Amino acid sequence: MSLYDSSFPQMARMLGQVPVWFDKAEAYAEQKKFNPEELLTARLAPDQWPLRRQVQVVIAWPLRLRAVLLGEEPPKPETGDETIKDLRARAGRTLEQVKTLGPEQFQGAEDRTIPLAFMPGKGMRGADFVFQFALPNFYFHATTAYSILRHNGIDVGKLDFIGALDLRDL
Amino acid sequence: MSLYDSSFPQMARMLGQVPVWFDKAEAYAEQKKFNPEELLTARLAPDQWPLRRQVQVVIAWPLRLRAVLLGEEPPKPETGDETIKDLRARAGRTLEQVKTLGPEQFQGAEDRTIPLAFMPGKGMRGADFVFQFALPNFYFHATTAYSILRHNGIDVGKLDFIGALDLRDL
Repeated sequence: MSLYDSSFPQMARMLGQVPVWFDKAEAYAEQKKFNPEELLTARLAPDQWPLRRQVQVVIAWPLRLRAVLLGEEPPKPETGDETIKDLRARAGRTLEQVKTLGPEQFQGAEDRTIPLAFMPGKGMRGADFVFQFALPNFYFHATTAYSILRHNGIDVGKLDFIGALDLRDL
Repeated sequence: MSLYDSSFPQMARMLGQVPVWFDKAEAYAEQKKFNPEELLTARLAPDQWPLRRQVQVVIAWPLRLRAVLLGEEPPKPETGDETIKDLRARAGRTLEQVKTLGPEQFQGAEDRTIPLAFMPGKGMRGADFVFQFALPNFYFHATTAYSILRHNGIDVGKLDFIGALDLRDL
């Protein structure tokens, strides 16, 4: 058990589901004859980030988490007008980078103090940052992206969110 | 770092946010002169579980996880027509039970094989069950509950989802 085990592998799995969501969105758009890019501006409330930004945040989290746990400056998050094709490509590139990470890089990170950019003068213990902040935020935006699609008629199901499970025979 | 550390404390924090969501829902219902119980039947898609069931699943997860990690039969999930008052009370009772748990009870649970009720003959390694299934599902239903409220005009914000953070001075 390490901080790595409890964060990056599952973040990688979730990144791998992003194209699955877009596959279903594009199939539905094709069937209903609308431009699937319109979905990127959909939201569940007028003062909420739209789908594009939700997916951008999901993609940003793993490398942000890697950086702050290693005491590095996190990459500047992408907030531009990316297309579905752009988001697919960036999710794929990020996934490849996350796959190169391993538990040995994060040894000791659970006790490192992570400064909070949005709360000057304050920080969190590395493990607290992962469990109280990074993972809840990551899942929050992933589920919101999923919910925006679901609310717009796309036939995504919970298995498209969860992805494949590592099973054992009993 | 233990399987306990990466699951139950944050599940407890999230249970502690459930009354905060209902506080805001009831305040909004009062202001708009509607019965807040109506929100319990709201959903984001016609074939999705409504708010009541989403909250029931959130409340059920911590004790379900406790049971399966200890090799016990999980408690039968509550699926009846609970009111907001009922859900508040049950979230509170569950929170008290989760607070009595500790890491020592779950030693070795990461390697225990957890049978999957929905996939006869198959199981998952304890740690995989927590990271690939329990936590994504827990956050999925918590975020969906939040999103249903947000979509219905309730002024919940991300901090109501995340809750208080354990901070350190830098």
